Amino acid sequence: MAKVNISGRAALLPPSPIRKLIPYADQAKKRGVHVYHLNIGQPDIETPPEFWHAINNYSEKVLAYGNSQGMADYLDKLSAYYKRCGLDINADDIIVTTGGSEAIIFAMTAICDPGDEIIVFEPFYTNYNGFAVQASINLVPLTTNAEDGYHLPSAADIEKVITDKTRGIMYCNPNNPTGTLYTIDEINRLRDIAIKHNLYLLADEVYREYIYEGEYTSVMSLEGINNQAIMLDSISKRYSACGARVGNLVTRNKDIYTAALHLGQARLCSPTLEQVGAAAAYELGDEYFEKMTNEYRRRRDVVYDGLMKIEDTVCLKPSGAFYIMAKLPIDDAEDFSKFMLTDFDYDGKTVMMAPGPGFYASDGMGKSECRIAYVLNTGDLKDAMLTLKYGVEAYNSR
Amino acid sequence: MAKVNISGRAALLPPSPIRKLIPYADQAKKRGVHVYHLNIGQPDIETPPEFWHAINNYSEKVLAYGNSQGMADYLDKLSAYYKRCGLDINADDIIVTTGGSEAIIFAMTAICDPGDEIIVFEPFYTNYNGFAVQASINLVPLTTNAEDGYHLPSAADIEKVITDKTRGIMYCNPNNPTGTLYTIDEINRLRDIAIKHNLYLLADEVYREYIYEGEYTSVMSLEGINNQAIMLDSISKRYSACGARVGNLVTRNKDIYTAALHLGQARLCSPTLEQVGAAAAYELGDEYFEKMTNEYRRRRDVVYDGLMKIEDTVCLKPSGAFYIMAKLPIDDAEDFSKFMLTDFDYDGKTVMMAPGPGFYASDGMGKSECRIAYVLNTGDLKDAMLTLKYGVEAYNSR
Repeated sequence: MAKVNISGRAALLPPSPIRKLIPYADQAKKRGVHVYHLNIGQPDIETPPEFWHAINNYSEKVLAYGNSQGMADYLDKLSAYYKRCGLDINADDIIVTTGGSEAIIFAMTAICDPGDEIIVFEPFYTNYNGFAVQASINLVPLTTNAEDGYHLPSAADIEKVITDKTRGIMYCNPNNPTGTLYTIDEINRLRDIAIKHNLYLLADEVYREYIYEGEYTSVMSLEGINNQAIMLDSISKRYSACGARVGNLVTRNKDIYTAALHLGQARLCSPTLEQVGAAAAYELGDEYFEKMTNEYRRRRDVVYDGLMKIEDTVCLKPSGAFYIMAKLPIDDAEDFSKFMLTDFDYDGKTVMMAPGPGFYASDGMGKSECRIAYVLNTGDLKDAMLTLKYGVEAYNSR
Repeated sequence: MAKVNISGRAALLPPSPIRKLIPYADQAKKRGVHVYHLNIGQPDIETPPEFWHAINNYSEKVLAYGNSQGMADYLDKLSAYYKRCGLDINADDIIVTTGGSEAIIFAMTAICDPGDEIIVFEPFYTNYNGFAVQASINLVPLTTNAEDGYHLPSAADIEKVITDKTRGIMYCNPNNPTGTLYTIDEINRLRDIAIKHNLYLLADEVYREYIYEGEYTSVMSLEGINNQAIMLDSISKRYSACGARVGNLVTRNKDIYTAALHLGQARLCSPTLEQVGAAAAYELGDEYFEKMTNEYRRRRDVVYDGLMKIEDTVCLKPSGAFYIMAKLPIDDAEDFSKFMLTDFDYDGKTVMMAPGPGFYASDGMGKSECRIAYVLNTGDLKDAMLTLKYGVEAYNSR
């Protein structure tokens, strides 16, 4: 049989660092060990009944193609939601995408040719890597640190890595994986650099609603950057509907809008039924997010308090999203995460986390860090954090 | 406000030639003209009740991420379906994708680096263009002709365009937009070239079930090409569920499988609910396709007979899919299609078609051709074809 090579970029595609420990978790479960899944941002919270109700009441007999830019009713609901958030975003500034993932790919493709660069701040959402390889572009990482809560580098440090290939700066606020909420000064710093160097500013704001302290600044609220701001968004976490694959891109730059529309036309449309569900979810009032934010705040506190009981852990309390990146007293997070699944249990239970290195593009970084997604109830989280503490002790006394 | 350029490839992205006449159709409707939509492959046939039933009975409270390669139950159903088709395809040869669109993008990315080439036969499914621009690869078109029913060029003609950048040959069988069913000799011709030149053979087989005469040969049934065959598939037309966005890629090449899996992991998963619906649809027996094929055959006959009543039309009766590409006695299909919407009606009705040039990559080709999708009932189609005949006459006597 002939040997046929795959493409160079296909060979570079990283496996999901969040998912690659799954076989070990499956083995642990087979041994009867209960695994607390803190490795993936899959909330346990129920998708709103309004979402299900809308889908179950969909009365068309033919599940037909929708508009490539999104269903008109859903675009209106999105625009109304953004206006409630204080953002002047119209339906024709929005392209509905198949998950936030597709919004990122569309944005990368719209602004970059192969070989072009986007500056990111590591640790970052690990799938940016896969999207960059798919789009044949280069992510240029700037490292942030656990010691100062993963806040952004200085303007001078950011400007140092700008080249003639740099097309944009991409960030996630509040941040996955760190939970960091950037201050208005930090966001303005990025804006000023984007203006000065004529770069796009891409903001992944899917965790916008989950802020526990401090004030949130959207890229779409910034002055002087209308043609350069691109917001990436999704209902996955907002309405606990990760399997729906409904996201959207927002831009006031009409050329970017047109490029995203043409990319959208090639793939015809995003799933129809899920947009119907999402449109209903966006009718939920503020009390929905208040309840959700209070629940996640309680969870964050439990996880943070638990981490503080593990000696020599470095972690500032994060202010948003539902992740904590912690620097643990371990020297190899990959090995430790695997150990937790293969060689450890406490009272028949163990914890699965996402090892730090997968969130870095720079070699050798994040080796003591793990990302914890607080997507379980507080009772389980309390027990999980205790289990983690004993796991760290067991690992270090092997 | 700063002027920021979009990427070179974004500027190349074509608008959908199938959708770009929509504003004119909307205007016609506003004038009270009934528009027969033969421009897009959106069947009027109802999505099977089993599909809706499965979705409405989905009992999970959280719409969670599914597996990146697809839901296990759905993969099993797909494998069973292929085995019923006589194809030895296992669940672990399949990656579920978000529509056939994503299957094409994954395949292009897995086999091509930027600048690499894939040979296609024009006229071809127009969105291959957009996917190629997105993936920064080049489609190399070989022209087929209405006069001989759009059958494939000779091996010598195909081999002439192979370069050191050529990575694969992609075809659609039965064909969109032409309805042509390739003979076993034609498919073997492609296989032999692929083997000789170490190329991938990518077969878009989404219309597999709609064959009216002749025998269908799947790329997955070919001998000696296990590592080079990639099948692209979708439920959109098979189960009249275009808005579901459920497709899949099939390959026995484990490197391609892994590349597609990693691309899939980056975007997390395809929509969960639609896979649940699709799994139920694949339990439908052969009688479902028999009924559908008989219906489409009747429609094809009506359209073909109608075309034959338009003097000087060139069109061989196609054997599959639900499209006919016809060479009409007009000199500018774009202008004619627009004319039908802006300047013509017969008894308050008109016809919307997809102009030929959008299905060609070569400049100046397809100028007399239009694609007709026979996705309406036979009564409407009869009336539409009569309307088209009068439209051609009116256009030529302006």
